[in-house]
Order: sequence, then structure tokens, then C-alpha cells
Amino acid sequence: MTSSAPLTNHQIRLAKRPMGMPTRDVWNFTEETVANPGAGGIVVKTLSLSIDPAMRGWMNEGKSYIPPVEIGAVMRAGGIGKVVTSHNDAYKVDDVVIGGLNVQEYSSFDEKSIKRAGIVKVDLRVGSLTQWLNVLGMPGMTGYFGLMDVGQPNLTKQGETVVVTGAAGAVGQTVGQLAKIKGCRVVGIAGGKEKCDWVVNEVGFDACIDYKNGSVKDGLKQHCPEGVDVYFDNVGGEILDTVLTRINKKARIIICGAISQYNNTTAVNGPKNYLSLLVNRARMEGIVVFDYADRYHLAVAEMAGYLKNGKMKSKEDVVVGIDKFPEALLMLFEGKNFGKLVLQVASE
Amino acid sequence: MTSSAPLTNHQIRLAKRPMGMPTRDVWNFTEETVANPGAGGIVVKTLSLSIDPAMRGWMNEGKSYIPPVEIGAVMRAGGIGKVVTSHNDAYKVDDVVIGGLNVQEYSSFDEKSIKRAGIVKVDLRVGSLTQWLNVLGMPGMTGYFGLMDVGQPNLTKQGETVVVTGAAGAVGQTVGQLAKIKGCRVVGIAGGKEKCDWVVNEVGFDACIDYKNGSVKDGLKQHCPEGVDVYFDNVGGEILDTVLTRINKKARIIICGAISQYNNTTAVNGPKNYLSLLVNRARMEGIVVFDYADRYHLAVAEMAGYLKNGKMKSKEDVVVGIDKFPEALLMLFEGKNFGKLVLQVASE
Repeated sequence: MTSSAPLTNHQIRLAKRPMGMPTRDVWNFTEETVANPGAGGIVVKTLSLSIDPAMRGWMNEGKSYIPPVEIGAVMRAGGIGKVVTSHNDAYKVDDVVIGGLNVQEYSSFDEKSIKRAGIVKVDLRVGSLTQWLNVLGMPGMTGYFGLMDVGQPNLTKQGETVVVTGAAGAVGQTVGQLAKIKGCRVVGIAGGKEKCDWVVNEVGFDACIDYKNGSVKDGLKQHCPEGVDVYFDNVGGEILDTVLTRINKKARIIICGAISQYNNTTAVNGPKNYLSLLVNRARMEGIVVFDYADRYHLAVAEMAGYLKNGKMKSKEDVVVGIDKFPEALLMLFEGKNFGKLVLQVASE
Repeated sequence: MTSSAPLTNHQIRLAKRPMGMPTRDVWNFTEETVANPGAGGIVVKTLSLSIDPAMRGWMNEGKSYIPPVEIGAVMRAGGIGKVVTSHNDAYKVDDVVIGGLNVQEYSSFDEKSIKRAGIVKVDLRVGSLTQWLNVLGMPGMTGYFGLMDVGQPNLTKQGETVVVTGAAGAVGQTVGQLAKIKGCRVVGIAGGKEKCDWVVNEVGFDACIDYKNGSVKDGLKQHCPEGVDVYFDNVGGEILDTVLTRINKKARIIICGAISQYNNTTAVNGPKNYLSLLVNRARMEGIVVFDYADRYHLAVAEMAGYLKNGKMKSKEDVVVGIDKFPEALLMLFEGKNFGKLVLQVASE
């Protein structure tokens, strides 16, 4: 089953490696006809893309957990879309799928690359389009396995204190809500009153520290009087250093990201209080979500249940138009998004 | 049973908190008569003291894993001595004990403070005086539990690569030899040809990188061609940063100390490559040996076996005379000691 007329595909490609902030000139806007996917292949029309801090890392040269985006390549992105052409019995036209769609209007996959791009069908009865990019998608999975497998909150000793940065962001909102569901005391850190109010009043964190207004150190003293048992770090930099001064014995720090450092033009600021790990016999450990791929389905099932019964909320911030991608990405680093940042490329 | 004549006790007390290196002027040399320990108490004559990098931390104000040494107090030190006065049935005159003796010729313990100082009897048939301060003492226990419990070398997958700094030092020599016994590939890092030669030729490490002659990065490339699985860090600073660039997936970094940073007059240098923990899903975790006190006897029994059957060697560097304490301590920070540094206060 195929669509007939040739499709025009608008794409955003990496023109050069950014120094510091990824300004508009690092991108090339290109247009081409969608390639025929061949026998066994499919074409997916992008509906929405996930805009993530990790993208900044993919733009740098050098060894990381995945290869960098090559100069001239379409920018890597995860997204949700619908099948518009199928030469593969496993996919029907109008099936909704998530996976590596990249920053373009259409993705043409030959049979092998369907799997390589991690394309899987999703059920919109389980979650909405944007929820599949948020709580049920990579950010949600990152939060789930980062908290549960790396952070290992002590579920028998109720009331461990979990602190999470980027609390209103995609990963942060999942981590905090999940920690609450599991019986922890949860303190968020976010930028601005609006985000902090939402995190406490709408989502149910015990407290939220506004790092843009006042001292994080004072906030931690006030809201974590018994210290910090689990710290889920999305930001690095000074906040990581401050939290290190407040951790408890045997604390666990999950290193998920360091958005404050991604656009540095000089070296990353290492945590100068890292010897607190020694004093407190504490642990700092990295998470890469892909390691948990064989258990995504279990986490999705659990989280979908929380969404259905109202125990978990999800908030997305939707920017419309593929041409807005450069600005959308910058919003992350300026802390301007409120909720999971999604770029809507097509409405249907 | 008591000795009769009043004993004169020479002591070294902390006169002020050092800024940077602990120069001679931070110490007060005092003399007083040994106090009567009272009913249930004992007096221990110091034979040898353990000189450790951790001492530098105890001299600073501020929260740590134990309270700082107060200004005017006798400097804290672990040591080995013999009982010269006993009002306690559990101890006889001439019993040999280890524990918190501090930098003085005699320690007078009332009944309660015997336990508080961690005084335990030792058997010189199991190990020599200096071995009880080295492989069978705190450094050995730190190496044992740091490697086995925190580092968790994979003993079923033989040949994991363990890197240890201060390789000829007290903790380092234990860690490296134990890792070899457990089937790991072991690469030391030490300062100077003499130490490196000893570590490889006498002790049996697979290689040793001389950080004073050549690049640690090149050394790691050459001697750890398959990367680093376990890094036991005693030094911090640049070497920690360099090792972070060579760790494997799921690597474990044991933070035992940071001797390169203890005398900084400005802030500690945080590991600027800490995001390697994220990329490699690796872990950095602190160790404080006291946490394992209930298992010391098991580790001592195991290590004593290795000493007896020649699988493990121990090297001590003995400085003679309590008045040499200030200079002995500085030797550590200048890397001048070769083997576990011991201060001999009395020969019998």
C-alpha cells in the first residue's frame, strides 16, 4: 500500500559544529523529494519531534554514548509520526509510530533501518501524541530507570528525600511524580515562580526551589532539613556543587545531564565538592536510557496506569513549525520551555 | 597490675589550623605526666604511629566523617603500642594493641575510652608491628573493602583492568596486590622510577605509570589498551581527570582520597571530565573504612594468609622519633615516602 504523488521533504541539517550556543547559522535548511523506501520499507510523516538537551551533545565531535551527528546530516531527533507509505506487512498506512525520525517532514526507512531507528508502533488510547514523547517516551523512561535503577530510593524506609533539577522539565516532572508515588519526599529545583508553583500545586512535589530567585543553598536547608538521599541531576554546575554539600550518608546522585555546561566554550566545571562523596560514602552514577530498552514496555505500562488514574500529570510545551527548530532548541538552554518541549511539524 | 614511677609524656598538639602545607609552626610540642587511667583503665606506650594523608583533613575545620582535631588537642593518629599499666582484666602489661593512640608517647585510657579509641589486642605472630599498621591495619582494610565492596571487580569475568594511584603507598600496594590475587589486570600510578620498579618487579603489578616522568594519558593508552574497569583513586586532581577519559562502560571509581588537593589554599579542583560517568554509565563512590569495622577480622584473616604464603608483600618506610612527626607528615604530600609511612616512637 503506497501513496502516489512524490512528497517534498523539508529538512534541517547540521551545517557546522557550534561553539557555545547553537545559533541559527549552524543549521542548513534543505528540501528534497522523499526517497522510495524500497521493498519492506516505510515512509513516516513526522507529526511531532522531541526537543532534548541531549541534542546539544550530539552536535559535538568526539566519543560519546552515540556517534555525533555528521556535518551535513539531517539533525538527529526522536519523534512521533504516522505511516504514509508501507511496503511492509507489519505497518499499515496511518499507523502511529515513534522512533528516530530526525528533523524533517518525512523519513524514508528501508527494511533494515526501521529497526535501526527504533521505530515502534504506539497506541494513542494509552497516551496522547505528546505524552508519547514525554512521560511515555525517552524522557519518561530516563526518569523511570534513572530514579528506580540508579537512584534506588529506599522503598521500605519511607520518606527518603529526593531532589530533582529541571523539575518542570520532561525528565524532572517524571522523576518527581514517580518519587512521590513511591513514597519519597520530593523537592524540585526550577527556574521561575510559574514553574515552581506548578510543580508544587499542580503536580504535588513537597517543595520547589526557584534558583532564579534566592539561594539554592538556603532552599535546600529549608526544604530538606534531613538532608538529601537521592539527587537526580539534569543541570550540573553550581547547583550540583551546592547539593553535594547537603547529601546524606550513602546518598545516590544520578548524573543524567548537565544542561548548564553544554554550551560552555571552555571546559566543563567539575564538581569541586566531589569529596563529599567520600565523606558521605555516597555514589554518583551516570544513566543512559538506551541500556533499559528491554524494559521500556514495563515502565510504559506502569506510567500509563498513573496517567489514567490521575496520579501522574504530564505537561508539554508545544512549538509549531519545523522552521522553528533552531529557536526551540535554544529555548531549552535559556530555560524558556515550561514542560516537555515538543516541536509540532504537522498536525495530522 | 601497674607500673610504679610517674611517666613523662611528650605530645604533639595542633597549635593552629594550617593554610596549605602543614608546616612546623602549626604544631606545639608539650610535655606532661601521664594521667592515672583510673579503675578499669589502661596506659599504652606508643611504639609506632601510622602517618596517613587523611590526617591533613582532620586538621581542617568543618563537617567531615569524623570531627576535626581541636586546636590545642593532641594530634589524632592510629598506632600500635604495648600496655604498660592495666587496671582492666582484659589487658595485661606487655599486651600489644592497636587503635587511636594519637601523637604522644603514652595514652591513658579510662575504661570507657578504651572502646571509644578502638583499642584492640593484636597478635604479633600474625603480622609484624609495622604490618599491623599497614596491610593488616587501616590502610589494608581501606584497600580491601574499597576494592572488594565498592570497586566490585568482576571475578567471573577474569582480567578486568584495575588502576590504582599511590601504587607504592600503603593503600595502593594493598589494592594492587589484592586485585592481582583476585585475577585482575593491575596498572599502578606512582611517582618515580624506584617506586614503579618495585611495584612491577617486586610486587607483581602488570605495569606502573611514573607520573613524574611522562604523560599519564599515554601510559594509560599503552598499559590499559582495553580501558579501565576499576579505578582506585587516592590522589584526585589531574590524574583523576585523565583516568576519566579512559574508563569503560559500567566502570567503578573508588574515591578514597585526593592527596593532590589536601593542601590547596583555594578550592578543590573538581573532576571536569565527570560527564564521562554519564557517557559510560559509570559510578564514582566514596569509601570510609570505619563502615566495615564489623568485618575487619575477616579481611585481616584473609590478608594475613596472603602475607604468610608470600602472595602479598608489605613495604613500610619508617621514620624514627616522635619529634620527626611534622616532617614525616610532609613527606606524604611531597611523595617522599616509599611504602607505608610509619613513625617509630619507641623501639620496645
